[in-house]
Amino acid sequence: MEKIGLYPFTVQPYQVDFQQKITLMGLGHYLLESAGIHADQREFGLRDLLKRGKGWFLTRLAIQMDAYPLQYEKIWIETWVKEVGDVFTSRNFHVLNASKEVIGGASSSWAMIDLRTRRPEFLKNQLGTEHVAGDKPSLLEATEKVPPLQPEATERSRYRVAYSDLDIMRHVNSIRYIQWMLDLFPLSLFEEKHVSRLDINYMAETVFGQEVEFRFEPRTPGQEYLIEIGKAEEGGPVCRGRVRWA
Amino acid sequence: MEKIGLYPFTVQPYQVDFQQKITLMGLGHYLLESAGIHADQREFGLRDLLKRGKGWFLTRLAIQMDAYPLQYEKIWIETWVKEVGDVFTSRNFHVLNASKEVIGGASSSWAMIDLRTRRPEFLKNQLGTEHVAGDKPSLLEATEKVPPLQPEATERSRYRVAYSDLDIMRHVNSIRYIQWMLDLFPLSLFEEKHVSRLDINYMAETVFGQEVEFRFEPRTPGQEYLIEIGKAEEGGPVCRGRVRWA
Repeated sequence: MEKIGLYPFTVQPYQVDFQQKITLMGLGHYLLESAGIHADQREFGLRDLLKRGKGWFLTRLAIQMDAYPLQYEKIWIETWVKEVGDVFTSRNFHVLNASKEVIGGASSSWAMIDLRTRRPEFLKNQLGTEHVAGDKPSLLEATEKVPPLQPEATERSRYRVAYSDLDIMRHVNSIRYIQWMLDLFPLSLFEEKHVSRLDINYMAETVFGQEVEFRFEPRTPGQEYLIEIGKAEEGGPVCRGRVRWA
Repeated sequence: MEKIGLYPFTVQPYQVDFQQKITLMGLGHYLLESAGIHADQREFGLRDLLKRGKGWFLTRLAIQMDAYPLQYEKIWIETWVKEVGDVFTSRNFHVLNASKEVIGGASSSWAMIDLRTRRPEFLKNQLGTEHVAGDKPSLLEATEKVPPLQPEATERSRYRVAYSDLDIMRHVNSIRYIQWMLDLFPLSLFEEKHVSRLDINYMAETVFGQEVEFRFEPRTPGQEYLIEIGKAEEGGPVCRGRVRWA
């Protein structure tokens, strides 16, 4: 079986923003869907894992977009396993336009968790190296650690987790955090620029009814911002993001 | 060309809720996507209309679901034009499971707006009757007017419209209102029951930065609720919904 998967999508009206460009949420769904198909075909997808009492948890995601496809455009997502470490495995992606030119790249990092003990599995016992395409060059080679915000970064707003935020693990789904981050920006930034790179590190889970707070730090206004989503009541970070505009 | 369209979908992980059931938002997207394909094929879809400076505006939507398909299930959406009136046209839907049994129905009402004058078009000049399948029986024949809430219905919360809420007309997209309504309910209701019918009437548009307020009236607790989304600053309703649980 081919190590590298390639899947076609057509950008749907509900996945575009006010400028008819695909949103990073829509794109994130396509990335995760492609990863799911690719892993399912190789019997290490979430479907197979759940039967064995295990699950995949996304720990980091980075997306670089040089151009944003529009509503109804055909795109391709190319995906492959980059590396299998002791605890984390990385999966890379390319986003291709209808002419199969690379217009974006992404990298993701995952841990396999035993759902009963909540502890990570030793991955090399679980994932064969026959699935790894480590040599394939990528537009975006690896995820990065997002630095903590300055202590004086201001709290911008709060939100209480609701029904539509939850995934099948009853945690806020990983794409929803990206939405919350982008929703902190003024519309003018989307009109004048585009997100050239987004990094997100997932650090803790949130559940129904929990209140989260958003902290926001312009590192270079108009160019680079850090965002931290934290638990409003108990404290502690839930995830951190870095958004670069070009 | 067949008057009745039939389109297959596979329920994606990002369209299901914590119980792995398709959300009404995911279903709503499939309904609108099916309507779009069906209308595009007959050259009265939004794509063709925009070229002529016109657009479709959804004014009412009603969905009845007897069973909710799960993640990865194949479903079919059947859709047809029910009626063309002077100003409104109605389009009906069936939701079928993989065995092509009807598990849900929906009805929608639309107006065609001239985007320059913001006035509705006289539809009979625009839409030929050769597209109408008025005789086809439907699980849910027609949308309904949602009654106003009691004046004493309490304001539950407020929200400021952000980037991800907007559609290509720069208004809050019609499915997002459904999400906001469902997010007012406790998780226990989703665990114990399911939404058997949802009605929504769209009355005004909201734009980026506007604050909306949610009012909530349990008519029969656990069974029927009314919700009104209004403009928090200027006042006036934006949309009204009725949610029935079974």
